[in-house]
Formats: sequence, C-alpha cells, structure tokens
Amino acid sequence: MSDTYTVRNKIRQVVEHPWFQPLIIGVIILNGLVIVAESYLPGNRTLLAFDTLIVWIFVAELVLKMTGLGIKGYFKDPWNHFDFTIVALSLIFYATPLVSVLRLIRVLRLIRMIPAIPALRKIIDSLVRSLPALTGILGLTTLIFSIYAIIGTTFFRGVLPDEFFGSFHMSLFTLMQVVTFESWASQVARPIIAEMPLAWVYFISFIVIGALVILNLVVAVILDYLGHENEEVHNEQMERLFKENAELKQDMADIKTILMETRDHQASDREE
Amino acid sequence: MSDTYTVRNKIRQVVEHPWFQPLIIGVIILNGLVIVAESYLPGNRTLLAFDTLIVWIFVAELVLKMTGLGIKGYFKDPWNHFDFTIVALSLIFYATPLVSVLRLIRVLRLIRMIPAIPALRKIIDSLVRSLPALTGILGLTTLIFSIYAIIGTTFFRGVLPDEFFGSFHMSLFTLMQVVTFESWASQVARPIIAEMPLAWVYFISFIVIGALVILNLVVAVILDYLGHENEEVHNEQMERLFKENAELKQDMADIKTILMETRDHQASDREE
Amino acid sequence: MSDTYTVRNKIRQVVEHPWFQPLIIGVIILNGLVIVAESYLPGNRTLLAFDTLIVWIFVAELVLKMTGLGIKGYFKDPWNHFDFTIVALSLIFYATPLVSVLRLIRVLRLIRMIPAIPALRKIIDSLVRSLPALTGILGLTTLIFSIYAIIGTTFFRGVLPDEFFGSFHMSLFTLMQVVTFESWASQVARPIIAEMPLAWVYFISFIVIGALVILNLVVAVILDYLGHENEEVHNEQMERLFKENAELKQDMADIKTILMETRDHQASDREE
Amino acid sequence: MSDTYTVRNKIRQVVEHPWFQPLIIGVIILNGLVIVAESYLPGNRTLLAFDTLIVWIFVAELVLKMTGLGIKGYFKDPWNHFDFTIVALSLIFYATPLVSVLRLIRVLRLIRMIPAIPALRKIIDSLVRSLPALTGILGLTTLIFSIYAIIGTTFFRGVLPDEFFGSFHMSLFTLMQVVTFESWASQVARPIIAEMPLAWVYFISFIVIGALVILNLVVAVILDYLGHENEEVHNEQMERLFKENAELKQDMADIKTILMETRDHQASDREE
Repeated sequence: MSDTYTVRNKIRQVVEHPWFQPLIIGVIILNGLVIVAESYLPGNRTLLAFDTLIVWIFVAELVLKMTGLGIKGYFKDPWNHFDFTIVALSLIFYATPLVSVLRLIRVLRLIRMIPAIPALRKIIDSLVRSLPALTGILGLTTLIFSIYAIIGTTFFRGVLPDEFFGSFHMSLFTLMQVVTFESWASQVARPIIAEMPLAWVYFISFIVIGALVILNLVVAVILDYLGHENEEVHNEQMERLFKENAELKQDMADIKTILMETRDHQASDREE
Repeated sequence: MSDTYTVRNKIRQVVEHPWFQPLIIGVIILNGLVIVAESYLPGNRTLLAFDTLIVWIFVAELVLKMTGLGIKGYFKDPWNHFDFTIVALSLIFYATPLVSVLRLIRVLRLIRMIPAIPALRKIIDSLVRSLPALTGILGLTTLIFSIYAIIGTTFFRGVLPDEFFGSFHMSLFTLMQVVTFESWASQVARPIIAEMPLAWVYFISFIVIGALVILNLVVAVILDYLGHENEEVHNEQMERLFKENAELKQDMADIKTILMETRDHQASDREE
Repeated sequence: MSDTYTVRNKIRQVVEHPWFQPLIIGVIILNGLVIVAESYLPGNRTLLAFDTLIVWIFVAELVLKMTGLGIKGYFKDPWNHFDFTIVALSLIFYATPLVSVLRLIRVLRLIRMIPAIPALRKIIDSLVRSLPALTGILGLTTLIFSIYAIIGTTFFRGVLPDEFFGSFHMSLFTLMQVVTFESWASQVARPIIAEMPLAWVYFISFIVIGALVILNLVVAVILDYLGHENEEVHNEQMERLFKENAELKQDMADIKTILMETRDHQASDREE
Repeated sequence: MSDTYTVRNKIRQVVEHPWFQPLIIGVIILNGLVIVAESYLPGNRTLLAFDTLIVWIFVAELVLKMTGLGIKGYFKDPWNHFDFTIVALSLIFYATPLVSVLRLIRVLRLIRMIPAIPALRKIIDSLVRSLPALTGILGLTTLIFSIYAIIGTTFFRGVLPDEFFGSFHMSLFTLMQVVTFESWASQVARPIIAEMPLAWVYFISFIVIGALVILNLVVAVILDYLGHENEEVHNEQMERLFKENAELKQDMADIKTILMETRDHQASDREE
C-alpha cells in the first residue's frame, strides 16, 4: 500500500515537472508537422511509424496523468474529458479500414494544442463564457433565417436551379451566402429579380436585417468583454473610495463625540 | 354579474399560469416544424390538418387572453397589437384562393416567437430604442444613395445593360451591390471604366463615403449601447460619492459650530 | 437711410421666421423628387419648368439671406460658402450646351439638404472634426498602396490583361478591389499565382497589412468619439470631486486653526 | 583630436538642424514621384539619373548621421537599423543584373517614409506594441487554418481542380479566400457540395469559427487601445483622489491628537 503510494507520488512529480508540459506541446507540434508532411507524401512509411509512436506517447501521457493525479483528479479539469476522448478514439480507430475516419481523428488530435497551451485555452474559455450573452441573438438569427428560408423556398423554388432555393436546407445555405455578401446580387438576386421584380424587397430587407443583427452581435461581444475587464478594476477602486469615505465619517463621528464631551465638561465646569 | 366576474378571474388565472406561456411557445415552435416539414412535403394532409389545429389554438389563446385581461388590458402591450393582427389575418385569409398570400401569412405567424420569448423581445426592444440615434445617419445614407443613383442613371445608362443603371430604382439596387463590395469592380466598375475612364472617381468616392458612413453607424450604435449600460452604473456611483461628500461637509459644519461655541464660551469665561 | 434699414430688418425677420427654414427644406426635397421624376421622363417640359422655378426660389432665398443678414453675416457660416457656390453655378451653367455638366450641378443642388437639416449637419461636422486624428493612418494607407502598386506594376504587368496591373493608376484601382475582398482570389490572385507561384506573398501580405490598417482606422474613429463624448462628462465629475475635496481640506484647515487657538488660549490660561 | 571633435559637433548641428529632417522627407517623397514616373516611362535616362542622385543623397545623410551622432548613438534607435539596411542594400545591388531585385529595393526605399514622419512612426509603434496581446489569437488562427487545410486536402483533393485543395499550402490559400468571403460559395463550396452533400458542415463551421476568431481579434485590439489610453488618465485621477483622501485622514488624525491633548489637559486641570 505504502509502495503504490510512493510510486504514485513519483509519477505525480514527473507529471507536474516544469519540463513535462512543454515536452508534450513539442510532441503535439511534431504531430502536426508529421500530418502536414504526410499530406505531401501520402502512405510514407517513416511518417506513419512516427505517427504510431506519437499515439503511444499520448497514451503514455494519459496513463501517467491518470495514475499521478488519480482518476477523479484527472477528470476534474473539463478539458481532460476532451483529451481522453480524442486519445481513446485514436486507439479505437487505430486500424480501422475506414481511412477517412482514421484521418479525421488524426487531425483532431491537433486540437489537443488548445488545452496544452494556456494562451489558447484562455481565448476559448473567454469565448465560451461570452456565449450565454449571445443566446438571444443566436435564437433571433435562427428565427430570421428560418422565416426567410421558408419564404425563399415557397416563392423562388422554380426560378433558379434547385441548389439555390430548391428546399429548406438549400435555402438556408443560400441565405448564408447572401449574408456574407458573396455574389448575392450577381448570382442570386439579379436572376430572380429579372423574373419577379418585387423580389428586391426580400433581398434588401434580409441584408439590412442581417447586417443589423450581426452589428448587434459584435456590440454584445464588445460590451461583454468591456464589462468583464474594466468594470472589475473600476469597481475595486470605487469600493476603496467608499471604504475610505466610511473611515473618514467614523473619524468625524469620533471627533464629534470628543468635542461634545469636552463641551459638556466645560459646561458642567462653568456651572459648578 | 358576479358569475361572469368569477369566470373571467378563472380565465385570468389560466392565462397567467406559469405553464401557459411555455405551452404557447411550444405550439409556435411546433408550428415552425410543421411549416418546414410542409416545405418538403407540399400539400401533405396530416401537416395541413396540424396547421389548422395550430391556428385554432392561437385563436383560443387570443380569446382567453382578451377575456382574461380585458380588451383594454390586452391591448396595453404594443406587441399584442402585432399578435392580434397576425392571428386575425390567419383567420381572414384562411381559405383564400391566393396561395402565396396564405403561405406568407403562415410564415409570418412564426414572428410570434419574438413577443413570446423575453430574450428575443429584449433585443428587438433595444434595437427599436437605438433607432432615433440613427435617424441622422439613415437620412444621410438616403441622400448619398439618391445623389449617386441620379448621377449613375444620367451618365452610365447606355454603358451597361439596363438592369444596372437603366433607371433610378435600378441604380439604387446596383449601389446597394457596390456598397456591400459584391462584384463591384469585376461586374460593375471595370466595364464602365473601360468606356469612360473617369468613372473611377464615381466608384471610389462612393465606396469611401459609403464605408465612412457605415463606420459612423457602427460607432453610433456602440456609443449608444455603451452610454445606456455603463453610464447608469457609473453615475449612480458618482451620485453616492457626491452625497457622501455632502454628508462629510455637513459633519464639518457641525464640528465648526461646536468649536466656535466652545471658543466663544471660553472667551467669555476668560473675560469674566 | 432709415428706410433701407427698416426694409433690411423686415427681410431679416422673414429669413429668421420659424417657417422659413422648413419651407426651404421642403423646396429642396421637392427638387429631389423633380430630379428623380425627370430621370424617368427625360425632357418632360412640366418638370423642367418646375426645376427652373426651384432655381429661382433658391436665388431668391440667397438674395433674401444676404440682404437680411448682411454679406458679412451671411458668409460667416462656412456652409453658406458652399450654398452660394452651388446656386451661383446653377445660374452660370443654366443654359449651357454641356448637358452633362448641367445635370451634375442639378444633382449637386441636393447636397444643400445637409446644411439645411441640423441632424445631417452634425454628422458631417463630427466627421470633419475626426479627420485630423486620421491623417497618420491616411498617409500610411497612401504609402502602402503606392509601394504595392509599383511592385504590382513591375512584376505582374505582362501576366494579366493591362487593365489590372498595366500601369501605376490601374494597379491602384486593382489594389482597391483586392482590399475590399472583391474577386481578389478568383479574378486577380489565382491567374497570377498560376504563372508566378511566389505571388501569393504579395497578395496575402497586402490583405493582412490592409486589414490591420483598416482595423486601426476603425479603432481610431471609435476612440476619437469615445474620447470626445465620455471624457467630458467624466472629467467634469472628477473636477467636482477634486473641488469638493479642496473645500473639505479648507474646512479642516479652519478647524485646525480654531483648535490651535483654543489650545494656546487654554495653555496661557493655565500658565496665568 | 579636438579638431575631429569640432567637426563632429558641427555635423551634429547640421543633422539636428530643424530643416534637416523635412529636407530628407522631401527627398523621399521626390524619390516616390521618380519611381512612379519611371513606371510610366521605363528606362528613361533623366529619371534614372535622378534616382542615382537620390541614392547618393541617402548615403550622404547616413554618413552625416553616423558621424554626427556616433555609430553607437546612431544604432540606438531601432528604426535606424532598418534605414541602414535599406541604404546598404541600395548600394550593394546598385548595378546588379537582377533587374527585379534592383526594382524591389528601389521601392522598399519608400518605407523610409515611416521612420522619417513621426505620425506614421507612432502608428507602427502602437501596432507593434499591440502584437503581444494578439499572440494567442494568432496561434489559434494558425491551428484552425492548419486543421481545416489538412481536412480539406484529405477529403476534397479530387473534387475541384488541384489549385484549390491539391496540397496543404493550396488549401491554406483557398481557406484565406473563404475567410474573406470571396466567391466562397459560388467558386469553392457549391461545386464540392454538389458531389459531397455533407461538405456544407466543413464550410459553414469554418466561416462561423473564422468570423468568431476575427471578431475576438478586433475586440482584443480595441480593448488593448482603450486600456492603454483611457486607463492611464483614469488611474492618475484615482491616484490623486486616494492621495487627497490620505491627506484628509492625516488631517483628521492631527485634529484628533490636538483634541485628545486638550481634553486630557482639561481633565488634569479639573483634577487639580
């Protein structure tokens, strides 16, 4: 019992060693280079051997961390759930005949870079934290896209080839193209307006509403960040001012009490 | 009389029940799914029957709300005017032979989602509230578009096919295309410049002015929000600081009075 | 002498009458409608007669204002210089055989809307005021465009048709197209990269630098506005706080003096 | 020894003369005009002679500055390293048979405008200063682009012509085109979706993630500037408030001490 404890402690020291994390980051970057190189030399044996080696290093890292920190301690960090899934999938689909699934997982291993490098982790964390502030706008966007997609499918189905407004999901894709201003007039709006002159109302209103909603989204994100960053410092400073004012007031009250006492004493002195 | 009152009160309890609004939201979402499904299976009888059912649920909701809250109470909320219009139109055009009008109203019923869900309602409310701050910029945009559209119609009418600068309203649409940077050079500006080399002044000036005005619009919206949100908190804090300072001053004045009195008494004591 | 003075005063009363300015705005808007209508019915006699009438109304307005306010008083407002030029040009080119010049001036008369409506005037004024803050960025933009235009002309002259990189000014126009992301890859970059693979450095660097500079321009404008609006209020509040603190300190000093005196008196009392 | 010192001092006076820098700026602008003119008249002898003259003026300026300020003093300013490299390269490649290298260096000489004009220098300096705040976002961008480029190369290699997803670097270029919304649907996404319907996930997710990251970049830059500019002033004001409060408190303490003493004296007086 004490032996396993010592071993576990030693592993923990390895895992928390200042050189451990940079080493893993190095292996992930090497992994990226190997994958890029393999896209130029598909099926190259040395690269595939390297890739296998890297998978086993990742497995070893995972086992070390799980024994060092304990299974509970390991899964406390939500990012480790992600890490575990990726490495597990790498092992499961290791020798799959589905080459495309295999390659997809190989690439997804690169996302391990995010939890490994604190600067990236911070961005994702703050992105995720700002999502709740955006639910309303995302809901509104979904609603607007749905309404315009149904109207588009109903009225423009026959006018353009089917890949534009042929069905609800194709209309959604076309609206995505319109909202990014990509060939919205030359490829989508002009041919339709040529046959149905009133269709300009549909496109202009969608572009104006879409731009307004995106503008609101940008403003919401900016305000969210501004709120988190500046207000904390500002409120701390204000708190300090209020606290100091309270102390000043207490001092005043003390002085008043002393003065009252002195006056009362003097008064009683005089009366004597 | 007392009977109708009791009935009305009971209906009111139903309408204000915490489960009533989520139920209606559920029906609206179901309505959306039915409409999307119908776009894949046009004329499907089950879906149409569902749609009819939903219209009658909406009518029932409206009648319940109007009797529960009273007609006056119901129309106090400006969003209910919108709700009433949509449901009334759904009933009026229920069996219209104008299929496209029918379908348009069916889709517009989805907008009922906005007043039903508070998060969406808040965004639209704040959007509407920021409109007055934008009147000036919208007026300026109209003016700039009009001037450039007339110049475009006058000078480029014969150069490109009529759908570009053939008339005032076509020029407006083309300018909308130019201001979103959509094929402005490849489809619009280059063919014109090939024949009238000086036309670059028209396009470059319009793009620069347009971008500046849009930039101003973005800044106006950001400032408007920043103003509403931050300043309220900040001004409250400042008010508190000023109020506390006023109290400190009053304390000072009190202390001074006491001191003066003491000094005067002492002086009179000494004189005695 | 007294007679002309009375007449001038009466004209002044007319010019400054609360109905005078709205009337002129109405005429300018009517002018806009006439010009738009004329673009649909070119050469229509009624519209041309209307247009002539409006020019004479503008001339009358100008004469009234100049006599009412005095020539000096009239030209004090910089916008009136602009007004005068436009109306003078309208008169000078009234019966010019150069139809296009005539039409251009007719349209430019619409710009009179800006000085006439205060909301528009304010936007232009604030835009002009924010220009000095942007000189640096505009200078940098000119420099970057020039450098890339010369490089483009030198290296890509023969690769694409002459209207793209045939000469310095054509390269500038093409760079304007690239910086607005309009067909930059499909029409400009891809054909060049097909022949000169290293050309991607040119386009990617230009897009990244261009986007960075534009981002800086946006930030500069936002900061400029934020600075003007918020800081004024904030600094006023801070000034008030500092002033109140100074008063508190003065009170303190007064109290101290009184206390010192009392103590000294008591001490001398005791010594007696 | 004293002689060289006097000469050096005189040169220093020349270099630091208020007319020296504007003169050099004038020469750089002239250089720009000569280069533009030469792009219209390639091989014109007068222009080439002018260009040679300007190079020698730059060399003279460099020698003057280096002797006037001393070699150490000259290289203290990091911009001078850049200046030195450009002028040295101009001399080294002066008569190179590699015309294109020669022309590139000739154009790069224009960048000397940036260190010469303080307004431009300030922008670049602040841009460079804001880079550290962006490392995280730039790293994330690299990672996202790499992952999508590898996925794109793996799955879409055969679908479109090779210049789109033929290899890793071509995929990177195509993603750059997609992220700027340039023909992303019409030229890239639609032909792929026509063969692989699920490819919309790839494009829509890339556009949404790309837009989110760019939005974060913009917000990071805005916050960075806002932080630097406003907070300094604000913190100074807060410091002043805190300092004044500390003084008020000291005053209070003084008053209290005096009051205590007075009271104690009175008490002892009474006891006597």
